[in-house]
Amino acid sequence: ENISKYQLQYASKYPHFPHLYKRETHTIQASKDSSKDDSPNLFYVFFLIIIIILQCISVADLKTPQGLAGYSCKKLELVTVDDFVFSGLHAGNTSNLIKAAVTPAFTAQFPGVNGLGISIARLDLAVGGVVPMHTHPDSSEIIVVIQGIIDAGFVSSANKVYFKTLKTGDIMVFPQGLLHFQINAGTTPALAYVSFSSPSPGVQILDFALFGNDLPSNIIEETTFLDDAQVKKLKGVLGGTG
Amino acid sequence: ENISKYQLQYASKYPHFPHLYKRETHTIQASKDSSKDDSPNLFYVFFLIIIIILQCISVADLKTPQGLAGYSCKKLELVTVDDFVFSGLHAGNTSNLIKAAVTPAFTAQFPGVNGLGISIARLDLAVGGVVPMHTHPDSSEIIVVIQGIIDAGFVSSANKVYFKTLKTGDIMVFPQGLLHFQINAGTTPALAYVSFSSPSPGVQILDFALFGNDLPSNIIEETTFLDDAQVKKLKGVLGGTG
Amino acid sequence: ENISKYQLQYASKYPHFPHLYKRETHTIQASKDSSKDDSPNLFYVFFLIIIIILQCISVADLKTPQGLAGYSCKKLELVTVDDFVFSGLHAGNTSNLIKAAVTPAFTAQFPGVNGLGISIARLDLAVGGVVPMHTHPDSSEIIVVIQGIIDAGFVSSANKVYFKTLKTGDIMVFPQGLLHFQINAGTTPALAYVSFSSPSPGVQILDFALFGNDLPSNIIEETTFLDDAQVKKLKGVLGGTG
Amino acid sequence: ENISKYQLQYASKYPHFPHLYKRETHTIQASKDSSKDDSPNLFYVFFLIIIIILQCISVADLKTPQGLAGYSCKKLELVTVDDFVFSGLHAGNTSNLIKAAVTPAFTAQFPGVNGLGISIARLDLAVGGVVPMHTHPDSSEIIVVIQGIIDAGFVSSANKVYFKTLKTGDIMVFPQGLLHFQINAGTTPALAYVSFSSPSPGVQILDFALFGNDLPSNIIEETTFLDDAQVKKLKGVLGGTG
Amino acid sequence: ENISKYQLQYASKYPHFPHLYKRETHTIQASKDSSKDDSPNLFYVFFLIIIIILQCISVADLKTPQGLAGYSCKKLELVTVDDFVFSGLHAGNTSNLIKAAVTPAFTAQFPGVNGLGISIARLDLAVGGVVPMHTHPDSSEIIVVIQGIIDAGFVSSANKVYFKTLKTGDIMVFPQGLLHFQINAGTTPALAYVSFSSPSPGVQILDFALFGNDLPSNIIEETTFLDDAQVKKLKGVLGGTG
Amino acid sequence: ENISKYQLQYASKYPHFPHLYKRETHTIQASKDSSKDDSPNLFYVFFLIIIIILQCISVADLKTPQGLAGYSCKKLELVTVDDFVFSGLHAGNTSNLIKAAVTPAFTAQFPGVNGLGISIARLDLAVGGVVPMHTHPDSSEIIVVIQGIIDAGFVSSANKVYFKTLKTGDIMVFPQGLLHFQINAGTTPALAYVSFSSPSPGVQILDFALFGNDLPSNIIEETTFLDDAQVKKLKGVLGGTG
Repeated sequence: ENISKYQLQYASKYPHFPHLYKRETHTIQASKDSSKDDSPNLFYVFFLIIIIILQCISVADLKTPQGLAGYSCKKLELVTVDDFVFSGLHAGNTSNLIKAAVTPAFTAQFPGVNGLGISIARLDLAVGGVVPMHTHPDSSEIIVVIQGIIDAGFVSSANKVYFKTLKTGDIMVFPQGLLHFQINAGTTPALAYVSFSSPSPGVQILDFALFGNDLPSNIIEETTFLDDAQVKKLKGVLGGTG
Repeated sequence: ENISKYQLQYASKYPHFPHLYKRETHTIQASKDSSKDDSPNLFYVFFLIIIIILQCISVADLKTPQGLAGYSCKKLELVTVDDFVFSGLHAGNTSNLIKAAVTPAFTAQFPGVNGLGISIARLDLAVGGVVPMHTHPDSSEIIVVIQGIIDAGFVSSANKVYFKTLKTGDIMVFPQGLLHFQINAGTTPALAYVSFSSPSPGVQILDFALFGNDLPSNIIEETTFLDDAQVKKLKGVLGGTG
Repeated sequence: ENISKYQLQYASKYPHFPHLYKRETHTIQASKDSSKDDSPNLFYVFFLIIIIILQCISVADLKTPQGLAGYSCKKLELVTVDDFVFSGLHAGNTSNLIKAAVTPAFTAQFPGVNGLGISIARLDLAVGGVVPMHTHPDSSEIIVVIQGIIDAGFVSSANKVYFKTLKTGDIMVFPQGLLHFQINAGTTPALAYVSFSSPSPGVQILDFALFGNDLPSNIIEETTFLDDAQVKKLKGVLGGTG
Repeated sequence: ENISKYQLQYASKYPHFPHLYKRETHTIQASKDSSKDDSPNLFYVFFLIIIIILQCISVADLKTPQGLAGYSCKKLELVTVDDFVFSGLHAGNTSNLIKAAVTPAFTAQFPGVNGLGISIARLDLAVGGVVPMHTHPDSSEIIVVIQGIIDAGFVSSANKVYFKTLKTGDIMVFPQGLLHFQINAGTTPALAYVSFSSPSPGVQILDFALFGNDLPSNIIEETTFLDDAQVKKLKGVLGGTG
Repeated sequence: ENISKYQLQYASKYPHFPHLYKRETHTIQASKDSSKDDSPNLFYVFFLIIIIILQCISVADLKTPQGLAGYSCKKLELVTVDDFVFSGLHAGNTSNLIKAAVTPAFTAQFPGVNGLGISIARLDLAVGGVVPMHTHPDSSEIIVVIQGIIDAGFVSSANKVYFKTLKTGDIMVFPQGLLHFQINAGTTPALAYVSFSSPSPGVQILDFALFGNDLPSNIIEETTFLDDAQVKKLKGVLGGTG
Repeated sequence: ENISKYQLQYASKYPHFPHLYKRETHTIQASKDSSKDDSPNLFYVFFLIIIIILQCISVADLKTPQGLAGYSCKKLELVTVDDFVFSGLHAGNTSNLIKAAVTPAFTAQFPGVNGLGISIARLDLAVGGVVPMHTHPDSSEIIVVIQGIIDAGFVSSANKVYFKTLKTGDIMVFPQGLLHFQINAGTTPALAYVSFSSPSPGVQILDFALFGNDLPSNIIEETTFLDDAQVKKLKGVLGGTG
């Protein structure tokens, strides 16, 4: 009878919902019959939902050709929570030339960000580590320093330098397309996370762009005013030819 | 009577438009009376137009603060055809270090492009002229060679060089945010027009960004691997300090 | 020993880069060993680059179905400089009704502009040539006159005419979606380039839209107030029926 | 004691919320003291909200200059529900040349749509009423017929006509920037609502654009192939000169 | 000879169009020969059109994988007027729990809206009918009341309620992403149309999101402060588990 | 003479740059004269730069009215590095009802993100702390867990729950406009950073939206199916009326 009081209360509270009330009664008293009676009603309740199931969830289907706006959508029934969670941002190996490692969670690694206008990466800087001068042609970036001290800066279109030593907990924003860099300015390893305003930010690292390919030395020299010896030396270091 | 035949034809062709028909008759027979009668009708015809006059025409009001989407709209009654026409793309003076001149028609010079997603500039390259390595952080570019021969190229995010000698009539596209350059590759002056996918494209010229400001030499060296002598030499040439 | 001095200088300039220093030494003294030692290091240096190779370069793969944002991306290894360069903007054949020819470099002809928000076309106007009244439903346009004299104009939403005679070197902008036209106003052929704020601008030529299809004459007459004879005459000229 | 049981239940259900639990107790037992104790707590709860109050609500402040993205935001404390509700879509007066009336709820009339990418208008078509051939340069449109029968159509960029008689309850979509029209095809007045994909859709009515201004007759004739008599007749009807 | 006068008139009116003039003459006098002569000319006239046929018309090809910007384009030759017209907005069946029915014309039902930034749905509210509290994560909405009286409201980010009783003919706008609802506030069925600023608006109905799935009850309780009994009751009604 | 060798080398390397070469010589030999000679040259070199100084840098001028696309741009000469760096993401005070604190770096606190499509906040969760069920109507979000263990989840438009326990270093993305939450699932305080795809993300916290204002209880009950007692209890807790 506790139940019937409940039903009563329900009915009076929702005078507009006799079906809702009736269903509850049925559920409790005769669940089998009710399922027969109420299925049509429920069908209509869920009608709105059905529409949505047909819609696209943004998770990338990495096997489709990549469109300009991102990958096509993964089929909804194949999407799991692990498309939206990523546990692969491990400490990067900084035993390299620049003593730095960038571990990305972009669409290719983390298909859940497809089409969502955001992504993230982990930045490890060993002592002396440097993220060399580079640009993101299609994305702005925010760095948050988790550990250590980082010198960071960018150069604006107006040729002005914005340069600062960031302590743990500080953030800095680097506007889209502008040259910027980060340097471990401390005596301990530094850790930071960098967020991007694109799910697949491009990167153009200045030295690789200039010296790590077959761009002819004389063209580099004419367009950068660098000396021939300098160009050839860095081509040697970075594997460029020409 | 030629007229009345006309009216007849009109009336039969537009059976749905007695007012239109009537107006024509009035215009011819009694233009004064008709103006009294038909003004209310015409008022309603123009009703749709009135709405539009309230709307924004995109021409920049350069005296307003610049918003992120561009300038606010100039008042419609102040807009003239000369906001949409620009005759200032004269041959630039190439008597300078790079033997090149870029004459822009961006929002600041040509307020009619405000908000329209496009602008243009004239490029003059004397013999030996160079547009040094640079990026447009927010805009793609198409060059069309009008006169002369131009070597042009860009480096992609994947570090690959796309480089070609362009003859008169050739075009080349430089995707947004990527390093690119143009060089007069001939023995006569070259002329080109460059269109941008932004009404106010930003420009970041590599040498000015690195060497034309107070970015400390040691920071440049750490983030570009350039030699100290090289950095200091170019800072000297380009007016940089530090 | 010139070399060792070099190394020294390098080491002192980049105190943070012992690996870089070491690598140089190895390269010179024992390139084989160094390749064994340093490959892992180099691998990490190039780590950032690998990410990028997976990314989309905007060049259209014309064999994919066309999406709303453009075509899918061509595979990176198939992209060459000739996707970004177009030499097909030859003088058009103006021996036609309108004595005009528009030669496009849109995505279909020039896949490098896919997704870049810009395209270009060449406009040839013989003496007496006309680009008839038309709109681009999704694109603004800038014309630059290379040769000759061109009358150009557009009508705003507020029904106002912006009309001007353009001389060689002048530019004019036509805002998106508005009726506009160009006429050779001189006694010699005219040449111009027209840039668009879309890589695949649509075109709706007024006369073809009204008279070059099966839109019933009476519907045209009711919605344009044109005379029946006029409609039928132009349907005859432009191949329309109904 | 019903209450204390409640508290107990609450406490056990929300073990993580001692403050919430305590507050409830206080509220009931000693509301004054609790207000003293808990205000600081509540302050922090509302902290998240305070941030938001600083944000922009999109309602247009029509007294600011109109930017390209719309008007600036009305101050939050001045915004009322009547900014988001509009009761002015009354039956329009169709006693005019075209026997049609369009009553808009665009940003200028209905500031609540500012920045929301949508607006609506009411369309009344008397018997014989016509919305003449026109385009919206920046907006797609959906019509829903509420009453009567309407012939509607548009012409695509590919010059193809999409034309249909719409009955009550039918809808039709007109893609952005393409010529389209609506005609009362029945023997009773028709009523429809038209929704737009812009809060301030522009309109270019073909006849007004061609004949309702000072566009020179010879220019019209050259660019539309219309006869001189036809042009001059419609200039007469629509108030044009030249 | 009526014809020759015509030609004369034509020639004098279009001095710049001898070909146009000639063609007319030919057509009349020697249509066969003219077809041989003029086909090439016509070919060039139609040149502009050919370009466009290659372009994408936005109609969804529902058999392609859904991209982030919508479906790929249907082949032009398969597109008919019925892709742009929809007659399926019939009265919905309101014999359900909420006494309401939403009948959509979104991309899945109405492929013509693909990529056009707009869609529409029909809303039927029986007496007592309710569209429960919900959000559209990616779309703003305008309701226009066709019949009956509707209580409608939304809650802003600043936590303020905008609530109004709408009469027939009233409209209300609900900004993107905010909780809103509609209730039949009258004693007769209500009918409304709701337009969206997206061709495929998503919907998140609060009760289904909270109680119609396997979200654990304790999580719901912790994050909504709802009582356990309340949560379990509604899970029972709406088919949720956990 | 080391210098002259340098000059020679320079001249031969840059045959196209006699001015550059000459300038260097002058600088060294007669800096005063050279400044007289070369200033004009330098002026032209800097010509490109001048254009840019006129452009907008995106930093918000918080004193201007807020437009739909963000604030107007701060004057370039007033912009400093501190507009792009923020040191205010201190540990929040979690002594409140939800044992949680969100410390934002949105445009209002951090004007450098204006117009850049990205922002960040710090999230502190004491033991038992909860960020209640909420949505961001205009922004996607990525959380990165810096310290502790966090249960996080969201509900999709298709009504499916994506729920996971995140460990330190894990990230999760919450798509725009969908209900989501975070709970400290561990026995120590948790720290996370949350990035947003908007510089000024809105927030709608479910409980505040439903119970923290004057939304009438009966409306809440009709549109959420919650019991009257439940609604009134939470209105009491959260300061709502009605």
